[in-house]
Amino acid sequence: MAKAITLLESTRTDHRAQADELLTALLPHTGRALRLGISGVPGVGKSTFIEALGLYLIREQGLKVAVLAIDPSSTVSGGSILGDKTRMEQLSNEQDAYIRPSPSGGTLGGVAEKTREAMLVCEAAGYDVVIVETVGVGQSEIAVHGMTDMFCVLQLPNAGDDLQAIKKGVMELADLVVINKADIDPHAAIRAQAQITSSLRLLAMHGNPDHDWKAGLVWRPKVITLSALKGEGVDEFWAVVSEFRSMQTGNGRLAARRERQALAWMWERIDFGLKQAFRQHPEVRALLPQLQQDVAAGRIAPSTAARSLLAAQTGPAQAAAN
Amino acid sequence: MAKAITLLESTRTDHRAQADELLTALLPHTGRALRLGISGVPGVGKSTFIEALGLYLIREQGLKVAVLAIDPSSTVSGGSILGDKTRMEQLSNEQDAYIRPSPSGGTLGGVAEKTREAMLVCEAAGYDVVIVETVGVGQSEIAVHGMTDMFCVLQLPNAGDDLQAIKKGVMELADLVVINKADIDPHAAIRAQAQITSSLRLLAMHGNPDHDWKAGLVWRPKVITLSALKGEGVDEFWAVVSEFRSMQTGNGRLAARRERQALAWMWERIDFGLKQAFRQHPEVRALLPQLQQDVAAGRIAPSTAARSLLAAQTGPAQAAAN
Ligand SMILES: Nc1nc2c(ncn2[C@@H]2O[C@H](COP(=O)(O)OP(=O)(O)OP(=O)(O)O)[C@@H](O)[C@H]2O)c(=O)[nH]1
Ligand SMILES: Nc1nc2c(ncn2[C@@H]2O[C@H](COP(=O)(O)OP(=O)(O)OP(=O)(O)O)[C@@H](O)[C@H]2O)c(=O)[nH]1
Ligand SMILES: [Mg+2]
Ligand SMILES: [Mg+2]
Repeated sequence: MAKAITLLESTRTDHRAQADELLTALLPHTGRALRLGISGVPGVGKSTFIEALGLYLIREQGLKVAVLAIDPSSTVSGGSILGDKTRMEQLSNEQDAYIRPSPSGGTLGGVAEKTREAMLVCEAAGYDVVIVETVGVGQSEIAVHGMTDMFCVLQLPNAGDDLQAIKKGVMELADLVVINKADIDPHAAIRAQAQITSSLRLLAMHGNPDHDWKAGLVWRPKVITLSALKGEGVDEFWAVVSEFRSMQTGNGRLAARRERQALAWMWERIDFGLKQAFRQHPEVRALLPQLQQDVAAGRIAPSTAARSLLAAQTGPAQAAAN
Repeated sequence: MAKAITLLESTRTDHRAQADELLTALLPHTGRALRLGISGVPGVGKSTFIEALGLYLIREQGLKVAVLAIDPSSTVSGGSILGDKTRMEQLSNEQDAYIRPSPSGGTLGGVAEKTREAMLVCEAAGYDVVIVETVGVGQSEIAVHGMTDMFCVLQLPNAGDDLQAIKKGVMELADLVVINKADIDPHAAIRAQAQITSSLRLLAMHGNPDHDWKAGLVWRPKVITLSALKGEGVDEFWAVVSEFRSMQTGNGRLAARRERQALAWMWERIDFGLKQAFRQHPEVRALLPQLQQDVAAGRIAPSTAARSLLAAQTGPAQAAAN
């Protein structure tokens, strides 16, 4: 399995063709796992929670658990977090656990693609639950939401916290909000639970096709409290996840979600490829610096500059035909 | 002026080249106007407010006022709203007012481009204030924010209203929030003002480069109450706008904002052009339906399909070199 993932992560051109073949061969053996996204700000307790959950799933439920991560800082620094293997010490010693840190380097899109592909390998290798973790910063949450069956947001019981999540557009993605560290101040946790529940109700009016309350037999995002440190509430968490899964399977929304994700992912990769080819085109590279200056200085209208650059890439013959 | 705008809005290829020449010739005469974005849900009172503001600016301040609109529904229905010319009856009879309904047809990007270009024509024609109105639905607010110096959100004094705006990511774009219809229940308006002010403070911690409170002499989004129907508060509104304008001019942020907008707009048009050329490419059109089905059915990985389609557009020779 590690070899397969390494092949998929290789950037060598000849490896890429092999990797595509491997992926296509694996696909029929994927899709049976539950894909669980876990997000939350640094320090909220993601590692502690994932360790507790993983141990519970292996020891109490007899399941095999893989943990993958998308760390947006790894795309900037080029260095990957080792952190979680050492922090999830007990889990990483389990036979039925597989923990892989975030791939490093490249764009967020590239890192997300590698994680997606690693997820498929884990599924083909028989893991029952694939957890994809990300820290609550930037676009990485949207990427994780875009590759999982259920997206969970961990929160601290602080007022204002949920407003940040709403602002970032993450709250409306949450199928389940987990208020962690309930052991510190149980009353604050309960208050946060009530507040977030009412926010979610207001948010549910628009947007997320999995939460459209008007559409009948549909999931209503839940809010639970939990203590990852004491392991309290992990069984309730799993009960909610199981309820969500059976509802989404029964009403056909799990299949629809995965289909939507696959197509969205294809288009995202196409967009990226188109932009990359554009930026690398010699004519575009020759013209771009001056045109950007002219646009910034207000000497050329942005739309005029865009048309010139597009024509430069297409070449004079085709440009004339446009 | 109307002729120039009609030329810019033409979709004929030969007109487009002329239009680009015209734009480039106009550009040196643009940029002196204040570009004011006004957004808000249907019925909040945008037309009533813009009429009151326009009359105030013309009669009390001796300014020339242009009103443009981006109506997202016009991109769907292909029909443009006439509404505002008839609803802003007094304003449309003023010598120094120019009111143009939303261009219709095409994508939101295309409609926004025409509005942007019409704005430049108005500026070159000597209008002092260009108001760009949009209804608070979908992506059109982001488009209007992307072409104006100051973005104002009109709100009703209802609780929950602001949460919707926060959720849609519009609230953090607001340089000024106007709570309209304060005449109906002044106390509710004051309560809404306090609540939105505190939300804005929490939101200001991230994101909008024009509102970074840690960065010294910087604008803090304001919230005012107003009655568009009675014309109460319009002078205060203009005082806040003038304060914003002189601050943004003094600290260089107005110029930086316009530069950012111009470059973002260029890249948006490039993106759109790249995608359009891709979708129209004969090889891509031949392959796409089957590949989309295969991806949706899980027979091919999305990234593999994306690579095939990109290679199809590039042609066999270049694809092999990738
Ligand atoms: N009291 C209490 N402390 C907790 C709980 N969960 C986690 N912690 C503590 O919070 C701190 C951060 O926990 P982590 O699990 O490392 O948090 P994280 O979200 O993985 O943080 P990053 O990896 O930095 O993003 C550690 O000191 C944990 O022991 C909890 O339920 N209760
Ligand atoms: N009481 C009161 N009514 C107002 C006020 N402003 C607008 N209205 C009324 O609210 C209704 C809607 O006003 P419009 O100006 O048409 O609202 P709009 O935002 O332009 O609406 P759309 O064009 O449909 O998006 C009209 O009946 C107005 O008379 C106000 O300040 N107070
Ligand atoms: Mg951690
Ligand atoms: Mg109106």
